[in-house]
Amino acid sequence: MTQYRQTERTRLKRAPKRAHYDTATVNAIIDEALICHLSTVHHGQPLLQPTIHWRDGDQLYVHGSSRNGLFQALLEGAEACLAITLLDGIVFARSAFHHSVNFRSVVIYARARRVDDVDEKRRALDQLLEKFHAGRSQEARPANAAELKATSVLAFTLDELSAKVRSGGPIDDPEDRVLPVWAGVQPVTLQRGEIEYEPPSGEP
Amino acid sequence: MTQYRQTERTRLKRAPKRAHYDTATVNAIIDEALICHLSTVHHGQPLLQPTIHWRDGDQLYVHGSSRNGLFQALLEGAEACLAITLLDGIVFARSAFHHSVNFRSVVIYARARRVDDVDEKRRALDQLLEKFHAGRSQEARPANAAELKATSVLAFTLDELSAKVRSGGPIDDPEDRVLPVWAGVQPVTLQRGEIEYEPPSGEP
Repeated sequence: MTQYRQTERTRLKRAPKRAHYDTATVNAIIDEALICHLSTVHHGQPLLQPTIHWRDGDQLYVHGSSRNGLFQALLEGAEACLAITLLDGIVFARSAFHHSVNFRSVVIYARARRVDDVDEKRRALDQLLEKFHAGRSQEARPANAAELKATSVLAFTLDELSAKVRSGGPIDDPEDRVLPVWAGVQPVTLQRGEIEYEPPSGEP
Repeated sequence: MTQYRQTERTRLKRAPKRAHYDTATVNAIIDEALICHLSTVHHGQPLLQPTIHWRDGDQLYVHGSSRNGLFQALLEGAEACLAITLLDGIVFARSAFHHSVNFRSVVIYARARRVDDVDEKRRALDQLLEKFHAGRSQEARPANAAELKATSVLAFTLDELSAKVRSGGPIDDPEDRVLPVWAGVQPVTLQRGEIEYEPPSGEP
């Protein structure tokens, strides 16, 4: 099983049993999630925004307007910290203290590379459409030169990261397990519904 | 309608029509979301982690272990940037370029205050349980002194922030609307399922 390397800042100090560094666990979380949160430091201040991400091998991609301020800070060399989080459930314990949530998350440290190679840029943007809907890159009108130029694609190499996973039921203290209080887990899932199609242009 | 103030860094430069500063829109996003992402700067590096949040008036609360490294950085005075994001749909345009997502997000700048007052701390933690499940704060065994001490509750005043909302269908260029390509929106929703109860202790 291939493992991501651990560094001082990706080593989980608390609940180390919930830490995962194998590529299978990490990549599955990255691929299931549709959005990530991207942060950096700019003029000493934290910047944070949500964005769409996708993955090809060890490359994590995001895209946005070429005028995006956070992207510009990253392209000036500022380090990024990205988080990808899937909420799986609310955990009800018998004690207030042991209430928790089930989740799978990945936190990544990396510096951004701007994707300038037109072939890589087109391939990456096609992969995003495929993540949205299989086959979509063959259906939609491809980006023209002006649209490609207006879009920045940034790549991050997946290398310094950790995943954290909590699953299962509540972990009450032994003396609380006899309390007459219900306990359990409420599953939380992100559902993609039926596509609401627009009528073709010209139809009422 | 009460409005949050705008500052240079909360004024949306692009797509300003998608910006919202009224408390009703902002607070509804904060209250619907179960998790936020919390970032700061520590020794010049970005720190980012997902966490549960809840709100009481203009106070946004998070909690965690008293030994949480990000919390410690915040309590040393580092500024926080928080993002709360709800994904509502995938937007399929006829052109690759105009594919998008529907979402509602809030980005907040604030400094953390550690909640030391025991009454406020207990009230805040009760409010978290109520967010998880109405009535839960009256059911679960309350935190004891050691548990309260092991839990840090941080408060942020909602003041410098912006909400951003995209909704509706694809916005294709006029010349693309006649292309024989389907378009529409796939709704995405976070579903809370049926609670899976644990049997009372002692039962098989």
